[in-house]
Amino acid sequence: MSDADRILATYEVRSTPDEVAGLARRIAYEQTVELPPALVTDPVVCERVLGRVETISSLDPAAGDEPLSPGTTAAASHRVTVSYSGELANGQLPQLLNLLYGNVSLYPDVRLADFSLPPAVAAEFAGPRFGIEGLRRLTGVRGRPLLATALKPRGLEVAEYARIAGEFALGGGDLVKDDQNLVADFAEFRERVLRCRDAVEGANARTGRGCLYFPLVSAPLESIDLHFDLVRAAGLRGVLLCPAVLGLDAVRALAARHRVVLMGHPSLTGGLARGMSLPLVFGTLFRLAGVDVSVFPDARGRFGFAARTCGAIRERLAAPLGELAPAWPCPAGGLQLDGIEAACAEYGADTVLLVGGALLGHAPRLEDGTRAFAERIAGCFPAHRVDPADREEPPAEPVFLPFRPEFEWDGRESSPYKTAAADADIPPFRGVRRVELVGRFGETTRTDLRYFEVEAGGHTSRERHVHPHIIIGARGEGRLVTGNREVVVRPNDVAYLPPLETHQLRNETEEPFGFFCIVDHDRDRPLPA
Amino acid sequence: MSDADRILATYEVRSTPDEVAGLARRIAYEQTVELPPALVTDPVVCERVLGRVETISSLDPAAGDEPLSPGTTAAASHRVTVSYSGELANGQLPQLLNLLYGNVSLYPDVRLADFSLPPAVAAEFAGPRFGIEGLRRLTGVRGRPLLATALKPRGLEVAEYARIAGEFALGGGDLVKDDQNLVADFAEFRERVLRCRDAVEGANARTGRGCLYFPLVSAPLESIDLHFDLVRAAGLRGVLLCPAVLGLDAVRALAARHRVVLMGHPSLTGGLARGMSLPLVFGTLFRLAGVDVSVFPDARGRFGFAARTCGAIRERLAAPLGELAPAWPCPAGGLQLDGIEAACAEYGADTVLLVGGALLGHAPRLEDGTRAFAERIAGCFPAHRVDPADREEPPAEPVFLPFRPEFEWDGRESSPYKTAAADADIPPFRGVRRVELVGRFGETTRTDLRYFEVEAGGHTSRERHVHPHIIIGARGEGRLVTGNREVVVRPNDVAYLPPLETHQLRNETEEPFGFFCIVDHDRDRPLPA
Repeated sequence: MSDADRILATYEVRSTPDEVAGLARRIAYEQTVELPPALVTDPVVCERVLGRVETISSLDPAAGDEPLSPGTTAAASHRVTVSYSGELANGQLPQLLNLLYGNVSLYPDVRLADFSLPPAVAAEFAGPRFGIEGLRRLTGVRGRPLLATALKPRGLEVAEYARIAGEFALGGGDLVKDDQNLVADFAEFRERVLRCRDAVEGANARTGRGCLYFPLVSAPLESIDLHFDLVRAAGLRGVLLCPAVLGLDAVRALAARHRVVLMGHPSLTGGLARGMSLPLVFGTLFRLAGVDVSVFPDARGRFGFAARTCGAIRERLAAPLGELAPAWPCPAGGLQLDGIEAACAEYGADTVLLVGGALLGHAPRLEDGTRAFAERIAGCFPAHRVDPADREEPPAEPVFLPFRPEFEWDGRESSPYKTAAADADIPPFRGVRRVELVGRFGETTRTDLRYFEVEAGGHTSRERHVHPHIIIGARGEGRLVTGNREVVVRPNDVAYLPPLETHQLRNETEEPFGFFCIVDHDRDRPLPA
Repeated sequence: MSDADRILATYEVRSTPDEVAGLARRIAYEQTVELPPALVTDPVVCERVLGRVETISSLDPAAGDEPLSPGTTAAASHRVTVSYSGELANGQLPQLLNLLYGNVSLYPDVRLADFSLPPAVAAEFAGPRFGIEGLRRLTGVRGRPLLATALKPRGLEVAEYARIAGEFALGGGDLVKDDQNLVADFAEFRERVLRCRDAVEGANARTGRGCLYFPLVSAPLESIDLHFDLVRAAGLRGVLLCPAVLGLDAVRALAARHRVVLMGHPSLTGGLARGMSLPLVFGTLFRLAGVDVSVFPDARGRFGFAARTCGAIRERLAAPLGELAPAWPCPAGGLQLDGIEAACAEYGADTVLLVGGALLGHAPRLEDGTRAFAERIAGCFPAHRVDPADREEPPAEPVFLPFRPEFEWDGRESSPYKTAAADADIPPFRGVRRVELVGRFGETTRTDLRYFEVEAGGHTSRERHVHPHIIIGARGEGRLVTGNREVVVRPNDVAYLPPLETHQLRNETEEPFGFFCIVDHDRDRPLPA
């Protein structure tokens, strides 16, 4: 592995000049082998696992060399870079976080300021699905910032949120999102989603524009996919979520699974950002997780962010990062009408300007308040234009697969049971075909339904795997052989096989034996029994 | 709602005496309505949503009144308590975090030091499934701390980890876990799990003891359940995971779903803990999330934790918190043999002492090193005893449900289609029965399989819901009516209905019409069409 394949982490530390080299070495050990140096002797471990201190430099703020991770801590005195083998990230976001900052997050004088990924590691992350261009297409707005607002406060009637959303859309707003506090049970969430959608779509029908509504998705992880499925089924194109509350890998998984714009709210981010630099959190990490629009406190607002920090966040959202799409900066947290020109000048056209209280309270009629802000933004970008919004997304349609007597289905093809390419180490099988029925064709179910048929004298592989099986007999008669049992399976018999149960299906008759098999969509590859 | 039903949050802030009341009020607004006070006029919002400042006091460290959230930040000057309606937490961990510290995490001078939950809110959390007593039963060890170690470093052959695990078990260790860096792909994880299990079980067979092996589960969320399923199928009783890396609600969801001991590693916790007090994070929050064993840096180790902080973590893990079980403190991070007596004295018997490098490097033979530590611990608790370990857990067995011609299954009963209690607002239906076949009986599948039968002239509710349906025709002939289509369903026909598709199944024949229905286990309740 060459040096070009290494991850480079930059830490800002507080230390004396005498001790900084020792601290840097401790970081490299702590983050990889977590053993005293005397116990790290295995050459493979030393070569492939142990981190390497690359550079140490002192910080000189007087010369403009300010730490990237300012905050309330005592100022860092040195910058240390440590490199790690790219393999150590395993292509997984949790492990990347663990590798870069896991244990040393507990060192009081060490903050993670920045990191860079080699192309092979960056390529493991999908990043923003929509990014700048995708959201431009959905809104139709080109050449100026988007105007956004939030439905708040919690505690109003649903009709009131729908009214606010509709008036904002009528007044020329581009994106209205729920407040991050509008947490509700599923029934209330469903009602708010459908009614606010109707209000915004009704307004769009009058204006000819493409204002978007992004509901807040905040729910226990067990039901969060259901919330996303509702959002998509309702025809909405994005959501607000709180990456630091949900966990960055939860966001990545949701981004991978659901084709919606992710707007990341900064709730709880201050926890992470006291140990890491703000541009790293709101820029690089949120983008790696798949956030399309990163909301962060504007320097003009009430959170005391430095203008330099906000600029660095914006830069990180657009900077080269593997092949990842650039994401939108979304300054928020106290923007006022009179600050619009300055914000437009600082952030440029590719920005979402999120205005809450100042817009809601600007004029007796919310539509007028929205128009005032929208015109102020438009005035800064006279060449902007509004194209037709690209709202095309074919709705999911029911699928009907009529059965044919030879146990084929219209709309699906039989395929081989297994292929050598897929399973290098396949236990023997004979005379089996499969028909993938549901789950591999873009459906939102977590389940795959397949039909398998074993010809006379044939059998499946004798194997086991961690994912459970459900089997329903469908044709003829076969034998299900498990670890310590053998049963005959006839049509409509049902069997459940728990994780790691060894099993094989055998046909000892003269007629074909067929069965439906239901498995989790995300599953492991079989092991020989 | 009475004051006894309110959540009380304690913030430690840095402020001047003149400004602290204003800061306290800003916290109460920021965390609930996030609007300027002039815009918060709705009486329902003021009464039920807006936070209330309860107390403000100055901190006087000279009088022993030290902040709970020390760290590298400038010392707090005041303690502020703000109360929130318990309803605002929605019984959900993400929302509790959002409510307590979401936006103000970004206030540089505000740290969350502590909180208390009213009984109704605490009751929404299950907390540790095993806790002190559960892990005592699994190990059989009573009246002394447990001795734990870690398999490390990353980069060794699997056989080497298995050797370490087996020798530790032979030497009298109680719990061996993977290092938090032993991240692997699923095949390598499976191999390590099975081989280390075999090594530990082999040693247990020789010693008659109940040493436990906890593999690290670190994986993208899509496949993390699969990892837990393997752990359980392998007969293992616990895992190591990193709550701050995965996200606290991910940990809660995993604790709810999987019947294993959760050992929480501190990786990345320093991020959270710079904004929150360490006892709150390692004690209260980890326990709320379901962590049974909370690993944190011991004051004697290399992370510079104060002894007072470690004591406060231990207290929080055992303090009354609704009906939640107490959890184990697990000090780690540099414990040495000579520190054992002091650690035993400080933490008491209900402690897991995690010794890594010092144990692995103590003697040429790991078994001897382990014995030295085990004897040192035992010497501090002469009255300890080792009962037979409670290793009984019936393995999951295959389930076979033979079909009977009247479309009943041996082992399952027919039940009503719907009951008024379950659905207050049920659209009309007629002549339908259901048989729950798989998914409601403790199986690990994410899927429920049911059989429905509609009698001649009957029909199901015309309804829609967000979760998708898969249908397989099984008996007779019926009509599937969707939003804009109607098809005839005969045996073995397959249909997939996407989210929110309106549907009804009707039987217009003279014979029963039956079908299998496959749905996600976690799903929403139907809406009238």
